[in-house]
Amino acid sequence: MSGHLVFLEREPASHVSYAYEVVRVLHRERSPLQEILVFENPWFGRVLALDGIVQLTERDEFVYHEMLAQVPLHAHPRPRRVAIIGGGDGGTLREVLKHPEVERAVLVEMDEAVVRVSRRFFPGLSAGFDDPRARIVIQEGSQFLRETDERFDLILVDSTDPIGPAEGLFTEEFFRTAAERLEEGMLVAQTESLYFHWRFTARVQRRLRRVFPRVDLYTVPLSTYPGNWWSFSVASQLHDPQRPLRPCRVPVRFYRPELHRRCFLPPSLYQDLLAERLPW
Amino acid sequence: MSGHLVFLEREPASHVSYAYEVVRVLHRERSPLQEILVFENPWFGRVLALDGIVQLTERDEFVYHEMLAQVPLHAHPRPRRVAIIGGGDGGTLREVLKHPEVERAVLVEMDEAVVRVSRRFFPGLSAGFDDPRARIVIQEGSQFLRETDERFDLILVDSTDPIGPAEGLFTEEFFRTAAERLEEGMLVAQTESLYFHWRFTARVQRRLRRVFPRVDLYTVPLSTYPGNWWSFSVASQLHDPQRPLRPCRVPVRFYRPELHRRCFLPPSLYQDLLAERLPW
Repeated sequence: MSGHLVFLEREPASHVSYAYEVVRVLHRERSPLQEILVFENPWFGRVLALDGIVQLTERDEFVYHEMLAQVPLHAHPRPRRVAIIGGGDGGTLREVLKHPEVERAVLVEMDEAVVRVSRRFFPGLSAGFDDPRARIVIQEGSQFLRETDERFDLILVDSTDPIGPAEGLFTEEFFRTAAERLEEGMLVAQTESLYFHWRFTARVQRRLRRVFPRVDLYTVPLSTYPGNWWSFSVASQLHDPQRPLRPCRVPVRFYRPELHRRCFLPPSLYQDLLAERLPW
Repeated sequence: MSGHLVFLEREPASHVSYAYEVVRVLHRERSPLQEILVFENPWFGRVLALDGIVQLTERDEFVYHEMLAQVPLHAHPRPRRVAIIGGGDGGTLREVLKHPEVERAVLVEMDEAVVRVSRRFFPGLSAGFDDPRARIVIQEGSQFLRETDERFDLILVDSTDPIGPAEGLFTEEFFRTAAERLEEGMLVAQTESLYFHWRFTARVQRRLRRVFPRVDLYTVPLSTYPGNWWSFSVASQLHDPQRPLRPCRVPVRFYRPELHRRCFLPPSLYQDLLAERLPW
């Protein structure tokens, strides 16, 4: 790896940068909201970066998207109506639409450029855009939830990091609005690295606990997000998120009910997280 | 992070390099075996790198060392005699010596410089060197096991990556020698990233299966080793490695029996690994 073009992602918490070897830059654009870059790495394949931060790679995106979507889809007894906040690449929508019981899925992405770029460069993610059950809304997510009169079984918050445009998706106010749009439903949000950003994760958990009767946390290791031990916060109005209710009948690559049962933090570690007593 | 000194670790499998911001270089030495570097990073604290690869950081070393050592120590009914192959920094030895039932622990490190550097720069890891139950042997690990007439309950292989000096610690011949030195015992070896090096992990598992009646795999996410989803192969002559036999009575920061039970791969994922069918 000498004399290469690299994409350098700076991770401020840990003072470690990730330098991805770049075979080819496929697309570069400044949308009104953010800087969009698509490049190719020999291992990860095509990579999407927004404002200098890797969002997904062709090689491993399915781990993140399956865990974000399939855990609540399997824990909810009848997920018919799903809202995805963010996720303009389409990966989470693809997972949701695998389930025939899903009757409608609305994807609320604030930046139309992400949807357009994904259609062109990530056909493996964006195929669901043309499903008749799917609707794409270009709007800020919390505004959409405030204004809609739709009700949902699941709300999946597939956001960028909680700095800049996505900040509003982690406030107690946002969670209250989301809870009003759910009917015996669940909300899942990606809540960053348990190693690097656990104070943030704990804060979000506490906010969710003021709004929902049951809040929990599950995790998966990811090789492309700094800190790597990725967390998903799940808030539920009624159902137990830890228990898959049926065998997996949809085509997945990583998710499986056995993993579902093991991906939640052990209770004592979870208590340590809430008390901001994690040992690192 | 501009205008900084960085330590650049190249990860050949994924074509991604990790650039650690360096506050200060504390030590630099070329031993007869390898290049040794100790530097300080604002987040990770002191970092030890061997031949350009980060081996441990003050901030998170305990996650790796506790998982390597405490899982077999809690699954073995009476771990009295322990051999550590590699691990010259002392972190694994520290974990082993926490257990009062351990009567003797021998640390077999091929490079005396690692032991010396750890004594000087990593007192939190190397404290066990002076424990009367500990013995430090400067020798190549497989040679030590071939020549010794000692018998062990646990052999912990705490090696560098399986290229260069540590290559011989992953051969079937080495495992056969180790098995002859165990009495109803267990061997654990770090076996690299499940995301980046799973073919290597699967190969090692197959070799272990030719020698031991029971072989298994557990994992933990680590933020400082590329690929991040780290694997530990455990081979057992008699005991079930998945089951902690007693509550944890030693001072640990991360390990807990609940985590012990969940850190093994779900059976279907484990079968996929053995068949080299992991989805990435």
